[in-house]
Amino acid sequence: MIGTNDIPGFFAAEEDLQREEHLFLTYQFETPFEPRLAAATLCSEMSTAQWKRPGVTEDLRPRFGAKVVHLEMMGTVSSPWLAHATPHDQYYRCLVRIAYPHVNFGTSVANMLSVVAGEGAFFCEAIKAIKLLDIEFPASYLQDFSGPKFGIEGLRKILGCHDRPIFFGVVKPNIGLSPEPFAELAYEAWSGGLDVAKDDEMLFDVPWSPLTERCRLASAMCRRAEDETGEKKLYVANINADAAGLLNQHDLAVKNGAGAVLVNALAVGLPALRMLVQHATVPVFGHFAFIAPITRVPYFGISSVVITKLERLVGCDIIGLPGFGPRMFTEEEEVLDTVDVCRSEFGNLKRSLPIPGGSDSAATLPSVYEKVRTLDFGFIAGRGIFGHPDGPRAGAMSLRQAWEAIVRRIPLEEYALEHPALEKALQVFSGSQGKKKALSMTPLHNFISAIHKVQS
Amino acid sequence: MIGTNDIPGFFAAEEDLQREEHLFLTYQFETPFEPRLAAATLCSEMSTAQWKRPGVTEDLRPRFGAKVVHLEMMGTVSSPWLAHATPHDQYYRCLVRIAYPHVNFGTSVANMLSVVAGEGAFFCEAIKAIKLLDIEFPASYLQDFSGPKFGIEGLRKILGCHDRPIFFGVVKPNIGLSPEPFAELAYEAWSGGLDVAKDDEMLFDVPWSPLTERCRLASAMCRRAEDETGEKKLYVANINADAAGLLNQHDLAVKNGAGAVLVNALAVGLPALRMLVQHATVPVFGHFAFIAPITRVPYFGISSVVITKLERLVGCDIIGLPGFGPRMFTEEEEVLDTVDVCRSEFGNLKRSLPIPGGSDSAATLPSVYEKVRTLDFGFIAGRGIFGHPDGPRAGAMSLRQAWEAIVRRIPLEEYALEHPALEKALQVFSGSQGKKKALSMTPLHNFISAIHKVQS
Repeated sequence: MIGTNDIPGFFAAEEDLQREEHLFLTYQFETPFEPRLAAATLCSEMSTAQWKRPGVTEDLRPRFGAKVVHLEMMGTVSSPWLAHATPHDQYYRCLVRIAYPHVNFGTSVANMLSVVAGEGAFFCEAIKAIKLLDIEFPASYLQDFSGPKFGIEGLRKILGCHDRPIFFGVVKPNIGLSPEPFAELAYEAWSGGLDVAKDDEMLFDVPWSPLTERCRLASAMCRRAEDETGEKKLYVANINADAAGLLNQHDLAVKNGAGAVLVNALAVGLPALRMLVQHATVPVFGHFAFIAPITRVPYFGISSVVITKLERLVGCDIIGLPGFGPRMFTEEEEVLDTVDVCRSEFGNLKRSLPIPGGSDSAATLPSVYEKVRTLDFGFIAGRGIFGHPDGPRAGAMSLRQAWEAIVRRIPLEEYALEHPALEKALQVFSGSQGKKKALSMTPLHNFISAIHKVQS
Repeated sequence: MIGTNDIPGFFAAEEDLQREEHLFLTYQFETPFEPRLAAATLCSEMSTAQWKRPGVTEDLRPRFGAKVVHLEMMGTVSSPWLAHATPHDQYYRCLVRIAYPHVNFGTSVANMLSVVAGEGAFFCEAIKAIKLLDIEFPASYLQDFSGPKFGIEGLRKILGCHDRPIFFGVVKPNIGLSPEPFAELAYEAWSGGLDVAKDDEMLFDVPWSPLTERCRLASAMCRRAEDETGEKKLYVANINADAAGLLNQHDLAVKNGAGAVLVNALAVGLPALRMLVQHATVPVFGHFAFIAPITRVPYFGISSVVITKLERLVGCDIIGLPGFGPRMFTEEEEVLDTVDVCRSEFGNLKRSLPIPGGSDSAATLPSVYEKVRTLDFGFIAGRGIFGHPDGPRAGAMSLRQAWEAIVRRIPLEEYALEHPALEKALQVFSGSQGKKKALSMTPLHNFISAIHKVQS
């Protein structure tokens, strides 16, 4: 813990700082200590914890220290959200905005993560629980990132699809099929109206389905479906691999006809994903596997907004997000915040296509569309297409029929009367998965609203 | 959720399975549903969630499905540990051991993480909170990993130090010093008896301290200290960077004299770290920055035991661990478990040197040694050396003097009477940082003991 006299060295007025020289970090934290002391100690641990040499008169804080520019008490709680805390009478729940001089780490994502979510922030004795809610980047910092190579517009151009959501399907059974039946299922779905068929995020380059063979057969079927339907189609190959082999997997997939590639963003690591994007010649899909351990805890970790922002920063053209409904354990507002992050202004970076997913089907399309209130999203189904009792062609048709109903402002149930694929989909998938019940609100969203206030 | 009839397809007797073909995963989870149904649904979501094509008679589960081999109810709780859960009367807290056919993902760490900590495990509607506690690897699987290139024995050989812990110092002030004063401080510490001086995990290749210049000056001082003391010394350069530049940073550091390199394991990503190790010609230090968001929550995420095991798997010679004392928010037993993981038998992989760290100094050396009960650990101090009132030479001397006192079985306070460096260290650092108070036990360790029972 720093001394009381040291607190002012870790505070600053935002208007006195050079905006372009800082990232602005928003954290929520819980502390049993006086909030100003706790926030200043946090800044100290995250930057210049020792700001002078013994026996030397110097102060490294003005140039290199993190600084509190806004601190707000949100309330008190009688026990902190995490275990491992010493008993105290009360804990202050605070929102802090910190200006961090980015000269300390530059434009390396690995370096940035080491600081904004490193030992200083997460092992600060004064702070018992902490969550990184947002990072604001100055425009000059963003110039070092090329972002998505294709973005939403690029994808739409490839697909020739400009006036509706893009329909994605995850070929199922996800694990265990050899390339022939796999490609056949994808073909059926494309023929039924699917735009993009993709590998499951757990389907890798495996003995019973080697990546090259799968790409070769699936892309041949993709071309056939294009010829027959007159619509452009895409096959997304899962090239997830350790960094040493990632670029080679990309090259193999593309050489064998894949139109886009998928990796699990945090499992390969954002820095390796950035390397992939720099090398890639096709759109890159970042999937959310391995994100939940970091994002799903309400008062600890890193928000999904931050992770999504970083995925766009390193260049994902398509971002798979935990979507709506009880299975995804994500507040509706949080899903919408991540959808926004993909699409809102972010330096000169292209927009990423958000896909809020999770047990979706024709039955959930209206409610998802109603929530996202834009055409610029990907709608994804797995069992909703490939578990359709009449097969994936009918599964894909049910999605397109649901969309037709929405466009014509006809209730799904009514439109289903003359559209058997949709009718069966509603029968089978309108159970608990179809309902997309709203989750109960938690106080987290008060904080997110507060951030928006702070930043505007 | 799967149907009741589908449960048996996700259960197996361990003795009926080919051990070498599976990883064994231990999770703790909380569910409001019948535990067998919840555990089977977890297996389903993590593997063959759809195990047949509509209209085809097939079952992909026997070969590709995850299977429960042990399930144990640990108790009930009235509310789950995480928010976002629907209200129920009670939640079962369970321990499950799952056999996972590794043919599904092979020996890629990125693929393995996508499965064992992916969407299936962390977005399973039946499971409200989940923590991955352990992964057991069969010997044949481990053969694909080369592990640490140097290991504890290699490090000891480089340093010519075989009969005591290895003393590490993090040069402080950590941020803001140019290479000249940085190298001078390191030299002072080496001269006082430090074995290894290292960059702070937040000190990168930055304008005011370019990596090449820092390596050049620090390693020159390292050679000088070696000549003067007759002891071998090491300088560890922080080469943390995005994957595309990581190998180049390694080459620059080594070419300019660094004797070892450091990266923040989860910030660069384990798959990129593995790529680095394959390329490295010097020992690799994996630091724990960015690990806490994943590991620090008691009933959610991934245990530090798993992360440490993976760091050894991908080849860290030295593993920086959250250590003892209240600042590190880690139970004593958990620290000891991670120390064990570095050193216990693990296929043919070399042992990694564990460094349980966190606000240590001469004052805490006896208690840390008493806890780890081995000579094979690294003892690390930052301010405990570089914040010593008489400078880093005295700081490093205080560590060596504390060790002499331990070897001679003389209480530190007594030995300090004739050793001023130690005396001052005790005066300054014996406050709250020196006490290394035990944290209160949480039920988590009941589970860890339970795992050991399950596995033995």
